[in-house]
Amino acid sequence: MRVPLTVTDFLDRAETVFADSPAIVDEPNQPAPPVPTTTYGEVARRARAWQAGLDALGLAEGERVAVVSHNAARLLELLYAVPAGGRVCVPVNFRLRPDEVDYIVRHSGASVLLVDPELDESLREVEAPKRFVLGEQTETEVMRFDTEPRPWSAPDEDATATINYTSGTTARPKGVQLTHRSIWINSVTFGLHTRTWERDVYLHTLPMFHCNGWGMPYVLAGLGVKQVVLRKVDGAEILRRVEGHGVTLMFGAPAVWNMVLDAAEKWEGEIPGRDRVRIVCAGAPPPTRTIARMEAELGWEFQQIYGLTETSPLLTFNRTRPADLGLPAEERARKLSRAGAPSLGTRLRISESGEVLARSNTVLEGYWCHEEASREALADGWFHTGDGGHLDAEGHLTISDRKKDVIISGGENVSSIEVEDCIFSHPAVAEVAVIGVPHDRWGETVKALVVPVNGVEVSEQEIIAHCKARLAGYKAPTSVEFRDSIPRTATGKVQKFKLREPYWRGRSRQVN
Amino acid sequence: MRVPLTVTDFLDRAETVFADSPAIVDEPNQPAPPVPTTTYGEVARRARAWQAGLDALGLAEGERVAVVSHNAARLLELLYAVPAGGRVCVPVNFRLRPDEVDYIVRHSGASVLLVDPELDESLREVEAPKRFVLGEQTETEVMRFDTEPRPWSAPDEDATATINYTSGTTARPKGVQLTHRSIWINSVTFGLHTRTWERDVYLHTLPMFHCNGWGMPYVLAGLGVKQVVLRKVDGAEILRRVEGHGVTLMFGAPAVWNMVLDAAEKWEGEIPGRDRVRIVCAGAPPPTRTIARMEAELGWEFQQIYGLTETSPLLTFNRTRPADLGLPAEERARKLSRAGAPSLGTRLRISESGEVLARSNTVLEGYWCHEEASREALADGWFHTGDGGHLDAEGHLTISDRKKDVIISGGENVSSIEVEDCIFSHPAVAEVAVIGVPHDRWGETVKALVVPVNGVEVSEQEIIAHCKARLAGYKAPTSVEFRDSIPRTATGKVQKFKLREPYWRGRSRQVN
Ligand SMILES: Nc1ncnc2c1ncn2[C@@H]1O[C@H](COP(=O)(O)OP(=O)(O)OP(=O)(O)O)[C@@H](O)[C@H]1O
Ligand SMILES: Nc1ncnc2c1ncn2[C@@H]1O[C@H](COP(=O)(O)OP(=O)(O)OP(=O)(O)O)[C@@H](O)[C@H]1O
Ligand SMILES: [Mg+2]
Ligand SMILES: [Mg+2]
Repeated sequence: MRVPLTVTDFLDRAETVFADSPAIVDEPNQPAPPVPTTTYGEVARRARAWQAGLDALGLAEGERVAVVSHNAARLLELLYAVPAGGRVCVPVNFRLRPDEVDYIVRHSGASVLLVDPELDESLREVEAPKRFVLGEQTETEVMRFDTEPRPWSAPDEDATATINYTSGTTARPKGVQLTHRSIWINSVTFGLHTRTWERDVYLHTLPMFHCNGWGMPYVLAGLGVKQVVLRKVDGAEILRRVEGHGVTLMFGAPAVWNMVLDAAEKWEGEIPGRDRVRIVCAGAPPPTRTIARMEAELGWEFQQIYGLTETSPLLTFNRTRPADLGLPAEERARKLSRAGAPSLGTRLRISESGEVLARSNTVLEGYWCHEEASREALADGWFHTGDGGHLDAEGHLTISDRKKDVIISGGENVSSIEVEDCIFSHPAVAEVAVIGVPHDRWGETVKALVVPVNGVEVSEQEIIAHCKARLAGYKAPTSVEFRDSIPRTATGKVQKFKLREPYWRGRSRQVN
Repeated sequence: MRVPLTVTDFLDRAETVFADSPAIVDEPNQPAPPVPTTTYGEVARRARAWQAGLDALGLAEGERVAVVSHNAARLLELLYAVPAGGRVCVPVNFRLRPDEVDYIVRHSGASVLLVDPELDESLREVEAPKRFVLGEQTETEVMRFDTEPRPWSAPDEDATATINYTSGTTARPKGVQLTHRSIWINSVTFGLHTRTWERDVYLHTLPMFHCNGWGMPYVLAGLGVKQVVLRKVDGAEILRRVEGHGVTLMFGAPAVWNMVLDAAEKWEGEIPGRDRVRIVCAGAPPPTRTIARMEAELGWEFQQIYGLTETSPLLTFNRTRPADLGLPAEERARKLSRAGAPSLGTRLRISESGEVLARSNTVLEGYWCHEEASREALADGWFHTGDGGHLDAEGHLTISDRKKDVIISGGENVSSIEVEDCIFSHPAVAEVAVIGVPHDRWGETVKALVVPVNGVEVSEQEIIAHCKARLAGYKAPTSVEFRDSIPRTATGKVQKFKLREPYWRGRSRQVN
């Protein structure tokens, strides 16, 4: 019997089986009145109220609902409710500039725009046929608790459930169309690999707009997992929530874990969650030193995945293999710094030019209103990730660089990720980004931008010597610049094209 | 991107990621030369050799390959290999009589019949276009290690992967067509709910022919789990294997666990696997006392599922809910005696007549060459399980009886399962089956067939009084007969129509 794989499977099961179980603990510190802690029965009721509200607004199936919000219970509810009625949810990065939000709202053709109260003012100019502020206004003017929603007329697993704009690390964000089937398979295999279960307590350290919180909210509901909302990422606050809520599971970019490590140094008493918490890291390459410290200083299990908004995002998964459990900690951390092995149902291949290619049900249907980009990304039936990488004998993928960020020095490819990992292993380094800058003889040469650990002295020569002792000579930076900070996007990424820009200004090409 | 969900996903991943990991430990005590312990790389190579061998035999896609075998590495290999080439695997119950096997081989139209050496003699008369004995003969005359198999021309998730004949508990076995998609979703959600992972060691206590070992072999491969083959179920041997191989996960019918409990009473020293082993029970209703003893005497975690061959089989799953962890052991056991909550993606409903109905991707496409039965089973778009049951406020299903086995006494429905559970809670009872027998006044009345614990005295009055103290009066048996044993099928089921038969002989109807 074929039953369409749709996102409704998840909240439906939650309501049937976990009606009385604690579901969502909203962020207490937010400008909107927090949603009082809900059971899954209540979440389902509220999701139906959202749906009925969209019905009442006259929204047809297929229409888009854009939401610009920090992490909040209401955003989670919308991730369930909007696609359940056959409509399309468009979660938007709340850290974008108004003109960028405007671009996405227009480009997606959203009929309704929902904004967090904190953004109401700054997004005043962003236009949409209907616009509401999340909180009091949506509770009274949108949600309809007095009537049942219209059921989705013809549930279809190939229908678009959400449109998620990419992080915009390399270019203007593109709208990724994810189908119900993609989200279903992503979420279930993600839950399988991470061994998510009803006894977990999940803390939303990841922005929910980012590829629907990597698709986890669906399987979390399906398995009746308690979800704790965190509105603003802060290391000490994460430790406090882990302690206060008995958190066991968190997802996030490397930058999040570095913040937690910093906070842990100042934490008084035992680190909460030791031998209980499992974390999943992705979005940017995690430094080996971060991994080793996570396990040594926090006692939290480290797992890595790799993926893109275009892949729902799951493509690979890395957890210490049974055979490696006895390895020295450093060696284990090194192996965990690989992106991981293909998730169930995913096939990976490296193209001749070194690009990672993927085939999977988690791969996008296409970019919204961008046929050319879709054709390019899906040429030959494989999805082109734009990332450089290689596969090893254990079937594990290592990402060496964004294809656009590869440094070619004297004809040799240098992986900026590898060099960053090496520099970050120096104890005086708090943050690092490695880029290629023009060089008359070598075309490009390796430059490191380094943020030193607060109050610690370290010299350019020391960093270079540190690399020369550990890497092939041509990979070591030829110059180091010290900075106060390295700007990151809301999804924890460094926009290298921006860092590179001043060095290449006035040149016709960005590579030599 | 749509990629067909086929069973090849599982072994493909095993080969990519777990090429060097231990895969299958074959049964050492068997008439065929055991397959030397394999890695997943080797299993994949052997599966290809099977496929290439079937190519060489001239078998087209869609043709059926019947296998009659005890649990063995070769049977597992065939479960992977036959559908991978677009053919259909038909695993047959090795405990059937030759005429029953003959019926299945003919009915499925198998082009090839593979038999275990132990059955070679008794199945001599069973005819098929091609026939081989598993072991030396298949290694040399079927498997082709020298050539690559022909790839499946058009992989299709809706194609039939296996035909599994039902246990024949109520009637002649029917051929259940399971598609690749059904098996995929069954296996992945089963792995999700049971938290299967690469650090598990799985012991095949369940007959592999039974609905493809409930579909677990697929996800076990996909996650790189070591599988230990057990050819013949024996309580003490299970304990020895758990100890010797560090087993963590086992599936089986209640009868299996009762055998283990018996063996544990005579086991010297500590019971192996305490606080490490998880078991999954299904196929027949597990007595509450068995559940309580499993946790108390073995320290193994008890989980229950409910399903049918027609449903791949997963429909429900029961593990102690977080809120119930603090309950007294007896109360926890009682709650675990429910069949469980609908698995992810499954919807259940109880019909007006009290029958359990299901909708799920795990439900069969239809019965092989049996349109009428298919139509009946799938009437109104719901699958009719033939089981009576009810859903409680926690969304959990309790099976009260096969619809055909419900006892109606004086107009009141009596669940034979409930009465059996009560009688089994008496310490002098080793086995019990409750049936309805004719009664002039009440139409039917409740009769218990009881196997007493070896050497323990117990009277009819005592059993009846035990029930009267615990159940509504009309549910208590009015007569008890003592037996030496109660016959069970290879899948651990009691054929109640056979037990009932002598009491109803000569009557036109089997119910009054
Ligand atoms: N585990 C990982 N290791 C290294 N890089 C990763 C990992 N996970 C994700 N990434 C990086 O993140 C990218 C996917 O991020 P996302 O889809 O959020 O948008 P983006 O690619 O950063 O933005 P845009 O496509 O708009 O430039 C991947 O292509 C890869 O470069
Ligand atoms: N957890 C369970 N509790 C009670 N009964 C169960 C459970 N799991 C399975 N069963 C019983 O097993 C049946 C499914 O068994 P299977 O498909 O092996 O064949 P069968 O129904 O016994 O045989 P046939 O359909 O040929 O009569 C279910 O319909 C149900 O009666
Ligand atoms: Mg990208
Ligand atoms: Mg049946």
